[in-house]
Amino acid sequence: MQLMDQLLDLAAMREEDLPGRALALARFSLLDWMACGLAGKDEPLARKLRSLAVSEGGRPVASVIGGEAAPARMAALVNGATSHALDYDDTHFAHVGHLSVAIYPAALAVAEDCDATAGALVAGFLIGAEAAIRVGKVLGRAHYNLGFHQTATAGAFGATVAAGRLYDLNRDQMRVALGLCATRASGLKSQFGTMGKPYNAGIAAANGVECAALARLGFTSADDGLAGPQGFVETHTPEIGAVEPLSGMLFEDNKYKLHACCHGTHAMIEALLAVRGKDALDLDAVEEVALRTNPRWLKVCDIKLPRTGLEVKFSYAWLAGMALRGDGTGDDRAYTDALASDGALAAFARRVRVTGDETVSDLQAEGQLRFRDGTVVPLSHDLADEIPQEVLARRLRQKAEALLGARGGALWDMADRLDQCPARAIGAQLAAPLPDGGMAAG
Amino acid sequence: MQLMDQLLDLAAMREEDLPGRALALARFSLLDWMACGLAGKDEPLARKLRSLAVSEGGRPVASVIGGEAAPARMAALVNGATSHALDYDDTHFAHVGHLSVAIYPAALAVAEDCDATAGALVAGFLIGAEAAIRVGKVLGRAHYNLGFHQTATAGAFGATVAAGRLYDLNRDQMRVALGLCATRASGLKSQFGTMGKPYNAGIAAANGVECAALARLGFTSADDGLAGPQGFVETHTPEIGAVEPLSGMLFEDNKYKLHACCHGTHAMIEALLAVRGKDALDLDAVEEVALRTNPRWLKVCDIKLPRTGLEVKFSYAWLAGMALRGDGTGDDRAYTDALASDGALAAFARRVRVTGDETVSDLQAEGQLRFRDGTVVPLSHDLADEIPQEVLARRLRQKAEALLGARGGALWDMADRLDQCPARAIGAQLAAPLPDGGMAAG
Repeated sequence: MQLMDQLLDLAAMREEDLPGRALALARFSLLDWMACGLAGKDEPLARKLRSLAVSEGGRPVASVIGGEAAPARMAALVNGATSHALDYDDTHFAHVGHLSVAIYPAALAVAEDCDATAGALVAGFLIGAEAAIRVGKVLGRAHYNLGFHQTATAGAFGATVAAGRLYDLNRDQMRVALGLCATRASGLKSQFGTMGKPYNAGIAAANGVECAALARLGFTSADDGLAGPQGFVETHTPEIGAVEPLSGMLFEDNKYKLHACCHGTHAMIEALLAVRGKDALDLDAVEEVALRTNPRWLKVCDIKLPRTGLEVKFSYAWLAGMALRGDGTGDDRAYTDALASDGALAAFARRVRVTGDETVSDLQAEGQLRFRDGTVVPLSHDLADEIPQEVLARRLRQKAEALLGARGGALWDMADRLDQCPARAIGAQLAAPLPDGGMAAG
Repeated sequence: MQLMDQLLDLAAMREEDLPGRALALARFSLLDWMACGLAGKDEPLARKLRSLAVSEGGRPVASVIGGEAAPARMAALVNGATSHALDYDDTHFAHVGHLSVAIYPAALAVAEDCDATAGALVAGFLIGAEAAIRVGKVLGRAHYNLGFHQTATAGAFGATVAAGRLYDLNRDQMRVALGLCATRASGLKSQFGTMGKPYNAGIAAANGVECAALARLGFTSADDGLAGPQGFVETHTPEIGAVEPLSGMLFEDNKYKLHACCHGTHAMIEALLAVRGKDALDLDAVEEVALRTNPRWLKVCDIKLPRTGLEVKFSYAWLAGMALRGDGTGDDRAYTDALASDGALAAFARRVRVTGDETVSDLQAEGQLRFRDGTVVPLSHDLADEIPQEVLARRLRQKAEALLGARGGALWDMADRLDQCPARAIGAQLAAPLPDGGMAAG
């Protein structure tokens, strides 16, 4: 089946036909995305984008995280970047990118504009995310390796589908919206390490809203701007991937970050936490952590002597000590620059030995923990393993609480009654309270 | 010299150091761009984009062609697309694209926002255009052949330089603005024939305003997002062109359309007009038009039996008859569908013989006109030949009058006092008069 037809079929799916597990995960993604957004709202780039929004003004139809309401395109731009500021949002490895930060901002802005229910919002996101994954897979790893950032490129198509669905576009209009997105989508990986990275997520979300809005107004575009001749796919990857049949939701493999550090270190942290159990461990009792990891991570997160809190996030050696002695790795604010000079962690770091092993996938950690008393305990974790939903919900709630305190817990209290509330109530949770409390009460 | 450094040097040029001939042409481009924009303001896509602008609202700092004022990003989007709607705007063949429609909307929106003079507006455009040409040349013909639309891609960098200069960015900020543009720029050729083509020009202009505005707010981005590792150039062309030394303004080769039809037919029309002189010619007196043209045009504008007014624009045979008998080829509205059924033109078309000739450049027409009385007159024209400025001004004025009547002439009456007026007065000429006449009086 052609990619464009598949996306149009997807976009037309009825809410009641969406698989329950995928919908449940989409709800988790919403709450986790909200937590990441609220935790990122005071980052410098978030403030700057809100300044742009304030300077433009306009009809306040969509909530801005930590700010006042704005037109939908602008809210999507600000919220996409703000929620990706901490790089703590969900990841889909086959899509090669982050789904929520590109798609929820577009879906929410349009849902608020149209006064949709939160149920329609979640369904719109799920379908948009599934579309983005499928575009991401066709663009393939070659697109990423060439220098493109799938979160932004494939993500824009997902945002377009989500926004278009919430604008209630018909099939022809949705085709136009995707065609316009093909000429609008962009985003480069060389921005990593700068505000350009989270900006990419905002770009994707804003593109989705703009293209859906223009299609709704009756714009025309190329017949198959996405996968047709000289369309987006053909011009943006040296190696076009196959279109997978539309059976089941690939979204169900979506992964959530539970530690506020590089994703490449998470399997090790989980393996160490499993060994440690509930209690903190005396670092002096450990003789060696021998870790085997996929070789690609050695260039990413094996900084031996981190100099800043940010570098600690990319240091197996430091993170191993933190995990074992019971530091909270889930709160972004834990990664202070002082942590890089922590004497106990520095001493322990010399006892962490990391080797590359091609037989270990990039979602796995393998190895062993050797104690001074001679005990040897195997280390093993695979992030690809499915986590039971109730465990995932509990851990995501803990993450939100680590980031936001009681407010994080309150977000998760919404989980059970999400589908009943209007999308505007979701928006109201994200926007800054107005002096008279009007908006936050939404 | 590196491309990024060259653009930063360009962006910092003092107004008084800009070459006079280039500045004069930049003023012509402004007036010609305004005429194209006003002539396109009732096209469906222009109306739809104005609807989007109205639905968003916001601080009315920048004029919208045929509409009310809007925030700068939005005005740039609407005006870029509107002014390219008729595809009658200027072209730079080495840049491989249209300069004014991507760059003037960005420059004007920011100039109005900052209350700059029209002189600063023209200088900002010229420098932005020069930057776009240099990016376009480095991206090269290979970028275009792959499927990218230089008007939109290279154009966005020009729009960023123009907007950034008018926002008075310093060198570091301008570097950031260009870096952000690298992750924001987009535009595909497969949109040609749809509203997506003019939309591309609007995208470029809006991207320029957004990236300059974010840099002004203190955003960060990749060190060399344009030409650095995995930057825009590396990811968007299979064959990177050389950076030409910065001596003189390549913008001086900018070309203007004087006929509202395919650019590939213009050299023939000019050659025929030169033979015809002031008076219309009796088509029955002509036995044959033998035209030699670059082979690439045979696939573009040699439609033998046009069925619509649009197809007439791509028909040497029809256009030859129109030029000789004195039809106004300069008014877009002349190309009616009825023209395709014009009996005299249809009969004459059979006497137009077109052959491809590799020795004829794509800006040239060669051949001969044979009369029934045996006279043979050579045909020859090269669009690359420089037109004396006063002749060009007169002909562009005629074009504006053909499109807009007296209003077109009034635009050109501004030519002599352009530099003295505020940019907002330029904007006021483009915006729809408010009921109380306030804005138009600007």
